Amino acid sequence: MDAKELPQARRMANLRSSAIRDLLAVTQRPGMISLGGGLPAPDSFPVDELRVVTDRLLRERPSALLQYSTTEGAPELRAWVAERAAADRCRPVEPEQVLVTHGSQQALDLVAKVFLDPGVTVAIDEPGYVGAIQALSVFEPRFLPVPVDGDGLDVDALDALLVGGERPRLVYTVVNFQNPTGATLALERRRRLAALAERYGFLVVEDDPYHALRFAGEHLPSTAAWTDNIVTLGTFSKLVVPGLRVGYVVAPLWLREGMAKVKQGADLHTSSWGQVLLAELVGEPGWLGRHIAELVEIYGTRAAALATAVEHHLGDRFTFQRPDGGMFLWGGLAGGVDARALLAAALERGVAFVPGDAFYTGEPDRSTLRLSYATASPVELDEGARRLATALDDLS
Amino acid sequence: MDAKELPQARRMANLRSSAIRDLLAVTQRPGMISLGGGLPAPDSFPVDELRVVTDRLLRERPSALLQYSTTEGAPELRAWVAERAAADRCRPVEPEQVLVTHGSQQALDLVAKVFLDPGVTVAIDEPGYVGAIQALSVFEPRFLPVPVDGDGLDVDALDALLVGGERPRLVYTVVNFQNPTGATLALERRRRLAALAERYGFLVVEDDPYHALRFAGEHLPSTAAWTDNIVTLGTFSKLVVPGLRVGYVVAPLWLREGMAKVKQGADLHTSSWGQVLLAELVGEPGWLGRHIAELVEIYGTRAAALATAVEHHLGDRFTFQRPDGGMFLWGGLAGGVDARALLAAALERGVAFVPGDAFYTGEPDRSTLRLSYATASPVELDEGARRLATALDDLS
Repeated sequence: MDAKELPQARRMANLRSSAIRDLLAVTQRPGMISLGGGLPAPDSFPVDELRVVTDRLLRERPSALLQYSTTEGAPELRAWVAERAAADRCRPVEPEQVLVTHGSQQALDLVAKVFLDPGVTVAIDEPGYVGAIQALSVFEPRFLPVPVDGDGLDVDALDALLVGGERPRLVYTVVNFQNPTGATLALERRRRLAALAERYGFLVVEDDPYHALRFAGEHLPSTAAWTDNIVTLGTFSKLVVPGLRVGYVVAPLWLREGMAKVKQGADLHTSSWGQVLLAELVGEPGWLGRHIAELVEIYGTRAAALATAVEHHLGDRFTFQRPDGGMFLWGGLAGGVDARALLAAALERGVAFVPGDAFYTGEPDRSTLRLSYATASPVELDEGARRLATALDDLS
Repeated sequence: MDAKELPQARRMANLRSSAIRDLLAVTQRPGMISLGGGLPAPDSFPVDELRVVTDRLLRERPSALLQYSTTEGAPELRAWVAERAAADRCRPVEPEQVLVTHGSQQALDLVAKVFLDPGVTVAIDEPGYVGAIQALSVFEPRFLPVPVDGDGLDVDALDALLVGGERPRLVYTVVNFQNPTGATLALERRRRLAALAERYGFLVVEDDPYHALRFAGEHLPSTAAWTDNIVTLGTFSKLVVPGLRVGYVVAPLWLREGMAKVKQGADLHTSSWGQVLLAELVGEPGWLGRHIAELVEIYGTRAAALATAVEHHLGDRFTFQRPDGGMFLWGGLAGGVDARALLAAALERGVAFVPGDAFYTGEPDRSTLRLSYATASPVELDEGARRLATALDDLS
């Protein structure tokens, strides 16, 4: 008998591969302008600093980078995360509340392992982050989509679902510059979401990968300012580089301890090398402030360039809201044009994007699409918008 | 209501923390000789080479180290793994069969996610690797312990269990220099295990972290020489350094594809930096052969030193088999002495080890213990054995 006939082997077939990753192959074609991927800007990577700091660490304390280390994470990195989390929450955070993870994607996996069973209800941004849908899907929950508008998760809609009897165990949302919509959860909604978490006893999973990429408006406090029923996920992928795969969780101590046990089984610990290197880099006096200023300049310029180009070339055929940060511009095509049909025409014209239906767990709005401005230059962004307009002409 | 009252929060409390990791704190005491940990020898780490290669890569192709990369792994690393696996299996292996993982510990987690449900039977080495027990326990299987003797997993005993009606979905075993016993699965047993996997349709999980650390005897072919119902797990943790957290799986294509989907949800991909760096290092002409010769010299010398010291100081009060490779010496105390009682006395005398009961899923043999010779010098190993003998005197 072949192991492939085992019933469990079929479980894999039910998982969807990321539409975005599948699209990556297409966008490698020469001449293609990709507004599709979620990759951060490579010109923002602090290559020289990473090289200098790595060289110094390997000379001064090689075993800190090379040997096994603790499941919880490097103490210096945990202390740094706790300090920043305290500022975001306007209240004390202990380093013991921090667990370093293999990217914030792993944090989702660990939360799911602890809290999910088949059929359990998980409320999630609609449209929402595909990676979260994937991470949670392995545990076969029932997704309860909650609409996202220009102010982030619609907490009124969530409240109505709760009043109607829904009892999600987790509520997942990207709070700042949400993927895919770019929306930020409004201050009053954060407070109300926290209150609902307390009243109904669910856990908020506050994902915040784009935190530092704010080029307009004011930073808002974390939802964790008002409740302990919360885990906050963060990452160095957009703050420094993604290739090291270092993220983190800030959680109440009881949950952080449990997640560390689960992580010990899952992969023993996060790369010692990546953790110690990043802690050393962000700990260099003055470096992080300068680096964030560069990030804001890069992403802010590109966001403005794409928004202007889209307005110029597409006019009222595409409706969107200018983002205050992050990597994405989200919008809808006028006249009910199907974004998948547009994608086919757009690829012919040499521009790629992600059709919005990839981000839905419920019934998708097929006229939506996501444009990323992270990796293209302003000139390319303008040309990309021009090609999009031409592709739209092709359809009519 | 507090999220901590959710029923699922209790799941975490049922997981055991690794006794070995808990012991680590004790072994940090000044003057303590640790025969307890499973850390590789830090003096074997190729620090200078890692420094030079990293510097070169960050100058020549920084984005290969710093940007997101594919879930399956770096092509050059997958090709290298496939080539070595083909040699071990005496038959072709395609790079497409390889999935790079976040240490081989993650490979266990991915296998479990695909194949396990609560109550499903998993046959496992008895005594066996604690990390595997932890990784699998999260998915609440029923463990079916299969004894390990001087020739590795007792395949006769497994056969008898199968004839008796047991239907494990997975059979997990460390095939070379097993943790904790140091035993290597004999050639004929590999062939028979493969035949049983075909007949009964279970998946063999062949874990092989210590492959390169053979200082006596001949390399044996992988069990995968005779069946496709198998995944082989490997790691760079003992071959180069553990701090980068890079391991891999070689699996039939249908399973590798499924595991990649599950990994995409779990953490997107393994560190680009670690993968590209290791591929470049092991690809340097002649380097790996020289490095393995050094590893064999270090571990072989220490294994001989500890075996000789234990024979000298403990004599017939401790029975063991000299290992042919790996990091561990396993044995039993004469007269039914309890290894936990000995540990308490040994810590007083300034030497640590791991009591054997930590490695059992069934009824433990409490007279067993595991000694690691990986990180101590021959002089320290002799002194450690002397202290052990003194501690044993203290008990009588």
